[in-house]
Amino acid sequence: MATSEDGQADVVVVGAGVIGLAVGWRLQGAGLSTVVVDPDPGGGASHVAAGMLAPVGELAYGEEELLALGIDSARRWPAFAEEVAAASDLPVGYVAAGTLHVAADAGDYAYLEDLWRFHGSLGLDSTLLSTRECREREPLLAPGVRGGFFAAGDHQVDNRLLLAALAEAVRRSGAALVRHSVAGIDVAGDRATGVTLDDGRTITAGHVVLAAGWRSGTLAGLPPGAVPPVRPVKGQLLRLESAASGLALRQTLRGLVNGRPVYLVPRASGELLLGATSEEMPATDASRSGAVRILLDDALRVFPAVDETSFVASEAAMRPGSPDNRPLIGPAGLDGLVLATGHYRGGILLAPMTADLVAGCLVSGATAVPSIPASCSPGRFAERPFSKDEATSRRRPPVTERS
Amino acid sequence: MATSEDGQADVVVVGAGVIGLAVGWRLQGAGLSTVVVDPDPGGGASHVAAGMLAPVGELAYGEEELLALGIDSARRWPAFAEEVAAASDLPVGYVAAGTLHVAADAGDYAYLEDLWRFHGSLGLDSTLLSTRECREREPLLAPGVRGGFFAAGDHQVDNRLLLAALAEAVRRSGAALVRHSVAGIDVAGDRATGVTLDDGRTITAGHVVLAAGWRSGTLAGLPPGAVPPVRPVKGQLLRLESAASGLALRQTLRGLVNGRPVYLVPRASGELLLGATSEEMPATDASRSGAVRILLDDALRVFPAVDETSFVASEAAMRPGSPDNRPLIGPAGLDGLVLATGHYRGGILLAPMTADLVAGCLVSGATAVPSIPASCSPGRFAERPFSKDEATSRRRPPVTERS
Repeated sequence: MATSEDGQADVVVVGAGVIGLAVGWRLQGAGLSTVVVDPDPGGGASHVAAGMLAPVGELAYGEEELLALGIDSARRWPAFAEEVAAASDLPVGYVAAGTLHVAADAGDYAYLEDLWRFHGSLGLDSTLLSTRECREREPLLAPGVRGGFFAAGDHQVDNRLLLAALAEAVRRSGAALVRHSVAGIDVAGDRATGVTLDDGRTITAGHVVLAAGWRSGTLAGLPPGAVPPVRPVKGQLLRLESAASGLALRQTLRGLVNGRPVYLVPRASGELLLGATSEEMPATDASRSGAVRILLDDALRVFPAVDETSFVASEAAMRPGSPDNRPLIGPAGLDGLVLATGHYRGGILLAPMTADLVAGCLVSGATAVPSIPASCSPGRFAERPFSKDEATSRRRPPVTERS
Repeated sequence: MATSEDGQADVVVVGAGVIGLAVGWRLQGAGLSTVVVDPDPGGGASHVAAGMLAPVGELAYGEEELLALGIDSARRWPAFAEEVAAASDLPVGYVAAGTLHVAADAGDYAYLEDLWRFHGSLGLDSTLLSTRECREREPLLAPGVRGGFFAAGDHQVDNRLLLAALAEAVRRSGAALVRHSVAGIDVAGDRATGVTLDDGRTITAGHVVLAAGWRSGTLAGLPPGAVPPVRPVKGQLLRLESAASGLALRQTLRGLVNGRPVYLVPRASGELLLGATSEEMPATDASRSGAVRILLDDALRVFPAVDETSFVASEAAMRPGSPDNRPLIGPAGLDGLVLATGHYRGGILLAPMTADLVAGCLVSGATAVPSIPASCSPGRFAERPFSKDEATSRRRPPVTERS
């Protein structure tokens, strides 16, 4: 608390979505005085997410590097969930049930079968299922469903419980959570020195961690090229309530419908999340009626009981997408600035790994500083590699400067 | 104000939807001290409505008597709107543009053409339109639309502006608006003597007007048979926003899609209302996902730009339906009790007429007491006519007892 009044900290984290909260908690816990700044902690894309921890289910052809990051982070999830729950005395709703993928028709099945073969070639845990086997796992599937596969390792967490627990863990750790917007990154002598808030106050810090989601590239004060492009990708999701209908799903269900993916994530509370679009469009939190329509139409094709759920709300948020849809984690093209953004559809899944990697960058005296995998290092988009810059030019290497 | 504290009034009105507010305002304005009781004034079905004033558009075969009531009330609307606006210094959003009805396909057109002939047989203002003529009135109609008709006299009011203005008019008139639930109707000596509130207070009154919507038959204390059956009929409506899309409707549009009616009501503000279901089911304010889906699907069939609107919310409320779907206005089967309920889909349209009729029942010394049309008199459901009862039995005639 005093930290925010003083305007001084070892690290200031811009953004308190799941990434900013997880990073801030890890840094403070590692002994760095940390301030996390966000006008709406736990909001944005993290709040609208469904909380699927699904590296296999999210796999697309050509995205094997993202898969590897997802699998790495998924392995950290059970311990991370326990640790957050213990630190906050709050539940996070981690459920280690698998995910059932089904095809709405024969054409969709052909695609899923190919994808399952691809899983096999990569050694992933994925079981091909006949129509009958799908129905045994989920009796209320639509009559037209044509087989699918089961990904036993694709779990879920209740993202809203998680965000509340993480925020509490941050508070208990002694880090400050400041409810303000960041007006700009302060730079002096080719180095990030802190942030200026929307009320004019400044927070000076040894390092600035940029975890501001899709806005990460838009902050004032950033030199050109310091942050690779981050674009907003709209995701829209429906919040339904299945308790009244008595027709609940047993597990997370993902459908492929005329080539369009749709998912239904049941919560123990009776809440049912139906998502999600990925729309490349100008940033807006408004829901598009056409997206509501298509989500409901597609969900009906795999799970007709969705019609009998209560409709609570349609919500939308902008995800942060990098040019290759992989995250940007680690030193940026400006000394003192570390990125933790660009997580696209995988912010919840990738949070434990991201927090560990950022802590590895910044914590002095860490016994084993993990190196940032090249697949998520921001330097992959630099005109000249950041590491070369760091060794030869005005920029000092942020990874090691505090050690 | 003093009235509610005293627990004494000439009339207590149970319910502050559009009917209760209009009645209360009229009664107080006519010199009767009036208390209107509702835990949520301006809520319920009146709040969720779209505000169509559409006696022609709502016409169904066999409902000519309801049509006559609607036409009567529609004629009162221009003066009523002006009067409410003047009394409250608030806008009510009355728009005297007509309503375009279109058919989604040839089958739907056959039905609309028949309906138009029926209009002609009743002398209604309704113009048959070719596909081209429909498109001239509304250029963004779906390619599949097949003709329709235009009802020039079917107008609209912004129901939420109206409710706010009516509540203000009630306050300015000197009537009391009490934000409580009514626990029961008080009856003494075969006569309604007032109401007991949920906090135990009582309000005694010369007359009780029951304007409690679908709950009108459920209040404690009512003798069997005093109020004809009133059932809840769920209506679900979507609130959209077309301002951002720039693709606005010019007028209220009603579509017939595979025999299902759907409407789109544009507001000057950019708001677009999409409705509405009529579902006979247990009372609930929860929206059903299947209804959201069908409303969006059907609207798309006549006006594709609906996909580009912003989705704000799905809302539902229970309408009050009598056994023949016509309202229940006038003396009930209990002395001192007057009904103003059962307005089903027509509460907004029928409010001016209802207020005038109830005032005619209760205002002493009225120069011309209007008789209650038989088509909406509650007595039509009595085992023996109320009028006979009134003349011959324990019940005094409420219409005249105060004169």
